[in-house]
Amino acid sequence: MRMIDIIEKKKLGQTLSDAELAFFVEGYTKGSIPDYQAAALCMAIRLMGMDSKETAALTMAMAASGDQSDLSGIKGIKVDKHSTGGVGDKTTLVVGPIVAACGVPVAKMSGRGLGHTGGTLDKLESIPGYRISIPTDEFFSIVNSVGIALIGQTGNLAPADKKLYALRDVTATVDSLPLIASSIMSKKLASGADAIVLDVKAGSGAFMKTTEAAYALAKEMVAIGHHAGRNTVALITNMDQPLGCSIGNSLEVIEAIETLKGKGPDDFNDLCIELAANMLFLAEKGSLDDCRKLAVQRIADGSALQKFRDMIAAQGGDPAVVDDYSIFPQASIQREICAEESGYVSHMDTQNCGISAMLLGAGRATKEDSIDHAAGIILNIKPGDFVEKGQTLAVLYTNDPNTLDNAEQQLRASIHLSSVKPQVQPLIYGRVEFE
Amino acid sequence: MRMIDIIEKKKLGQTLSDAELAFFVEGYTKGSIPDYQAAALCMAIRLMGMDSKETAALTMAMAASGDQSDLSGIKGIKVDKHSTGGVGDKTTLVVGPIVAACGVPVAKMSGRGLGHTGGTLDKLESIPGYRISIPTDEFFSIVNSVGIALIGQTGNLAPADKKLYALRDVTATVDSLPLIASSIMSKKLASGADAIVLDVKAGSGAFMKTTEAAYALAKEMVAIGHHAGRNTVALITNMDQPLGCSIGNSLEVIEAIETLKGKGPDDFNDLCIELAANMLFLAEKGSLDDCRKLAVQRIADGSALQKFRDMIAAQGGDPAVVDDYSIFPQASIQREICAEESGYVSHMDTQNCGISAMLLGAGRATKEDSIDHAAGIILNIKPGDFVEKGQTLAVLYTNDPNTLDNAEQQLRASIHLSSVKPQVQPLIYGRVEFE
Repeated sequence: MRMIDIIEKKKLGQTLSDAELAFFVEGYTKGSIPDYQAAALCMAIRLMGMDSKETAALTMAMAASGDQSDLSGIKGIKVDKHSTGGVGDKTTLVVGPIVAACGVPVAKMSGRGLGHTGGTLDKLESIPGYRISIPTDEFFSIVNSVGIALIGQTGNLAPADKKLYALRDVTATVDSLPLIASSIMSKKLASGADAIVLDVKAGSGAFMKTTEAAYALAKEMVAIGHHAGRNTVALITNMDQPLGCSIGNSLEVIEAIETLKGKGPDDFNDLCIELAANMLFLAEKGSLDDCRKLAVQRIADGSALQKFRDMIAAQGGDPAVVDDYSIFPQASIQREICAEESGYVSHMDTQNCGISAMLLGAGRATKEDSIDHAAGIILNIKPGDFVEKGQTLAVLYTNDPNTLDNAEQQLRASIHLSSVKPQVQPLIYGRVEFE
Repeated sequence: MRMIDIIEKKKLGQTLSDAELAFFVEGYTKGSIPDYQAAALCMAIRLMGMDSKETAALTMAMAASGDQSDLSGIKGIKVDKHSTGGVGDKTTLVVGPIVAACGVPVAKMSGRGLGHTGGTLDKLESIPGYRISIPTDEFFSIVNSVGIALIGQTGNLAPADKKLYALRDVTATVDSLPLIASSIMSKKLASGADAIVLDVKAGSGAFMKTTEAAYALAKEMVAIGHHAGRNTVALITNMDQPLGCSIGNSLEVIEAIETLKGKGPDDFNDLCIELAANMLFLAEKGSLDDCRKLAVQRIADGSALQKFRDMIAAQGGDPAVVDDYSIFPQASIQREICAEESGYVSHMDTQNCGISAMLLGAGRATKEDSIDHAAGIILNIKPGDFVEKGQTLAVLYTNDPNTLDNAEQQLRASIHLSSVKPQVQPLIYGRVEFE
């Protein structure tokens, strides 16, 4: 088999076989296929496309390119959840405990955030003492005893994806639906879950700016899951506004705890219930409607909150944070941002809200940047709200006074007011299963 | 300017500016743009195309990437000729002397052949003493005094093309019309001629297998010439049979001399007249019809032959070869190939005829191979001829007896006989000027 023949086939719009895609992924990972041939193939894939079977074969080959988690040491159906990323997205912290409280094991490995705001690991690390690096034995034993563990990715998951993504980034081939889908799903498949719930975000704060693009990506990923023998469903959700009211690591953990206490913001609470219900559904806990009721109940009876507490304790963190938020790192500086005029909040440029939080210290611009766990934003408004001149729009939190003016300017520029009441978009646009 | 933005534009099917194409060619030549980005761009160009202005800009940037010949030391309009290559193509050896005999300077630099049969330089080197490496001063002085010199390429012509071609060869991006056209024309532009006649071959012995493909390439190259300010015309010619009857270096030189004596095979003679006429036309020697008459006359009056003789003498060769073919290197072995049945010659797989000659020693399989100048084939047949069983189809010439069986088998397999008289294709399919 020769790489040039594989490129030639795709250039002519032909379908690549499983063996050809595996040959490419293996060769590229070990370095026998050079970057320039991989780049030519990526461009040919970007322009000629791949069908869902090809995409699944590529994804499985990438998943097989490194370590693959074996979760068979954990009893029950393991359901993973993945979000394509957005601003204020702390759903894992709520959904995990709900699902665990229903007796479904949650063995979740998360990555770090690069971009406007921290990832799940960064949020967890704002809990004093919480350990994200845990040996596999202990990880399994926590999941088996407590029912849930949230840790950092271990091992060398899908190195082919890491190498290929870096190449796509410099060859203008990032925006290929099959390549995006296979990149995300290769890591999910390697993580070893039996079933997967995807939260595909659409809007100004998401990678996919339109619902059409989000649906297309969701369908592609659900098909990959199906071909790979993992039951997969996707929700298409609104990222035209930050999720919930808090952006920033400890601020988001506090909002998650409030939600587990039944006092979370409506949008965030609703999305957590829906995601948890879908995970429970894939874990065969009943109809989707039954699963929704189950999820609501586990918040109402406090059992989800208790799971969160137990998990923190099991992973070395201080479970008292759940009741005493002053244990979290605190921001020495707060600035209130007030409305300069009256009007309806018509639109929030969500990515820029995230960048504002990043400027305050909540996220990383480069891999080397460190994070201020206390930094971030609490928003007092949602699109559709009417605000009076002088009313507080948001409060900025930071330990670095030099960041305030830039962050305020960035946040103000991303909140648009209008004299007309805008139509508010739904939180959940739809759900995608394999057809 | 960033290379990734240039790739992105072409990926989206947008038009690249002159500055962007120059940035790419300069950066790639000097190594600041890596192979993988160039590969992604080549694939995007292959799949999204380039318009004729972009192709011209790319070509001019490649021509400017290395040395550019300055032919201003030679008086008059300098017209170059280029053939896309075929089997038995020795037109330069006849066309050059005809044009020079009309008072139009011929200052031609040729490359070596890689593939089935030798290039013009290999043919010339079969003349004892002939020097192909001549310093620029002496080259100009020979052209100014004799009217013609045929030498090897000097300097570093279009290094961008050399590097890019090697990359395209391993990334399945050779078959892009704009890239093929710019590759050929970049070297022609760098060679410094004022006007260019292209001989674009179509058929089983050519790079372009169909006349449609040959026309498309011709139009692309003529447009480049126009945009670069070089008057350019192209002939689309038949390469579904070897040109003339001889394949192999000294055998082809002898056939060229015979043609200059007015005794050449019809097809080869006619093509030489037509190419010479077009060169004379671009050199403003009259209407195309007048130029045809002029070319015919220069053969009839012996002046073209005399130019050939003078050129050989000026370049250190033995001009006596023109009258005594025994001075050429001789093949120690000859084998007659006779027809095993009767029938019409319906088709000749021309590339395989060339490969047969190569097997005998007439060409190089790799750059390092040496050539047997005496080796080759003389064909006794043309498509459309009727042959009787036992009649001689061809004679093989070589100094290596071990090559004969393979070469015979290869040649026999490429000559197809039929009981029906086939329709014979024209020698010249058409002519392309800038519209």
